[in-house]
Parts: sequence; C-alpha cells; structure tokens
Amino acid sequence: MRAIGLFVVVSCLCPGVGRATPKDESARAAIAAFNRAWSDATRRMDDAATLALWEDDGVSLLPGKEPLRGKTALRQLLADVHARLPGATMKSFESECFDIEVAGAWASEWCVEHQVVALAGGRPPFDGRGRMLVVLHRGPDGRWRLAREMWSRAPQPAAPQGSTRHP
Amino acid sequence: MRAIGLFVVVSCLCPGVGRATPKDESARAAIAAFNRAWSDATRRMDDAATLALWEDDGVSLLPGKEPLRGKTALRQLLADVHARLPGATMKSFESECFDIEVAGAWASEWCVEHQVVALAGGRPPFDGRGRMLVVLHRGPDGRWRLAREMWSRAPQPAAPQGSTRHP
Repeated sequence: MRAIGLFVVVSCLCPGVGRATPKDESARAAIAAFNRAWSDATRRMDDAATLALWEDDGVSLLPGKEPLRGKTALRQLLADVHARLPGATMKSFESECFDIEVAGAWASEWCVEHQVVALAGGRPPFDGRGRMLVVLHRGPDGRWRLAREMWSRAPQPAAPQGSTRHP
Repeated sequence: MRAIGLFVVVSCLCPGVGRATPKDESARAAIAAFNRAWSDATRRMDDAATLALWEDDGVSLLPGKEPLRGKTALRQLLADVHARLPGATMKSFESECFDIEVAGAWASEWCVEHQVVALAGGRPPFDGRGRMLVVLHRGPDGRWRLAREMWSRAPQPAAPQGSTRHP
C-alpha cells in the first residue's frame, strides 16, 4: 500500500514521470506500428521495404564490420546477404521490443529477434537469435525511421528439448 | 554557391535544422564531459566511478549474454571481469563518439574504442577494439547517465597485434 501511495504522489507531481501523456501514447503507438512494419519487411526479405524504414543517413553497426552509413551502404549490405545465400528464404521471424522512450522527434528501444532461414543446396536451416539497440527519428513527414541500429548475437536458449548435451 | 544558399534558407526557416541552438550546445558540451568521465573511469578500471555513470535501471547489451539491467547486474559483470583477469591493468584506452543527438532529457551517440590491457601471468596483452551505441538520460539532478548501452567487436586494423579476446 505504501508503494502504491508513493507512486500516486510521484505521478501527480511530475508530469512525464510515472504516467504517459496522450502525446506519448500516440508516439508509442506509431513506434509499435513501425516495429510491425520492420518485422514484416524482414520476414518477407523485402529490401525495398526495409530501406524505406531507414533515414537517408542512418548508421548500422554490425559486429566485425566498419560502420555503414546511408542507404547506398545499406543496400549493398542487403545485396551481399542475397549473394552469399542464394535461394535463402525466411521461414520465421519474431521480434519483441522493450523500453520505448520518446523525446520530441527522437526515440529509442531495444529488441530481441529470432529468425529461422531455410538455405538452398540441402544445407541445414540457420536458426539464430539477435538483439538490437535502435534510435529512431521522426521525419518532417511525421514518419519514424531508423537513425541508428546496432545488432549483436543473442545466446541460444539454454536447454533445447531432446538435447543430450545437458542431461 | 547554390548548395550554400539552400543551406542558409533551410537553417533560417527551420529552427533546429542545420544549426545548433545555445541549449543544444550546452547539452552537447555536457555529453562531451560525460564521455570524458566515462573514458576516464574505464581507463582507471574504476568500477565505482563507472557505476556512478549509469542510471539505476540502465540496460547493457553484450554479445552472447542475456541483457543486464540495473546496477546490481552491472556490478556483478565488472566483478566477473576482475575475477577472470586478476592483475589486469589498462595500458591505454581511447574512445571517440559521433552523431550526438539531444532531445529533451534523452540523447544518443555511437562511439568507437581501442583498449590495450596488460594481463598477469606472462600472457600477451589484450589489444581490442569495440564500438558502442548508447542512449543517455538526464536525471532530475541535471546529470547525464547511461540508460542503454550495446557493445560489439570492431574489426582490427589490417595487421592485428595480440589476442582477439575481449577481457
């Protein structure tokens, strides 16, 4: 009860702390819609749709690679993936984002993703997990786009069912 | 000349686009000061000073690890590093940050770092490079702190020296 009382006091005294304003709610809904579009584009491996979700001078930070800035560099990255994995198709892609924070035309969140990609040539499917920290920017047209993204590998779940590695 | 004329028109019509306001300049200077304090704490391997630069519920995303949230988890991470590398000392640590964006009490930037760590027991020094995407938050006391951080390995220059392990 004491904790609840304290929360009520804080949320009454400090606008923006402990409660979301209608403006925040609208921005968060727009970012949730952005996240769905981002996942859909990734799931379809639709490069044009993916690139449309980036700022023109967006920066992508990937492990072991030089920073990529701008759509030309991002387009090349996607082309390289297709060239390296001809015939690959996304079997499933799921993601979830956390800690969405919005301030004016800027926002941030971090996300986890799990993708299963079927590979050509009889190779076993790629089953991988990653996470992203992203910074979004709302353009003059009111649309949110990726301004910065960093991705890294996430651990696989501890004990796959049927595994004999962890008896 | 045409490009310069266009820039002048844009910066006159759109406050916040193409020029920094004095408020922006003040926030950027504060973030530059934060970055110096962050580098200094890392260089000294000063865990207390490092933890003081974090929000209480800050999130750190490291490759292959579950997300770490809060100072207890971060303190344990630092303790684990010391336990794993007893006697290690930072020989040099340099970092540089880019694309600082400030909106209200939130900011973001991405940074590159290069560290050389002397290891005990006659092991060769660790010489590694990484990069970070970070989201900063300004607390009620006016101080900027780390709210989200993601780190990943950066490529070594053409001729790497020493180990490739991260301490």
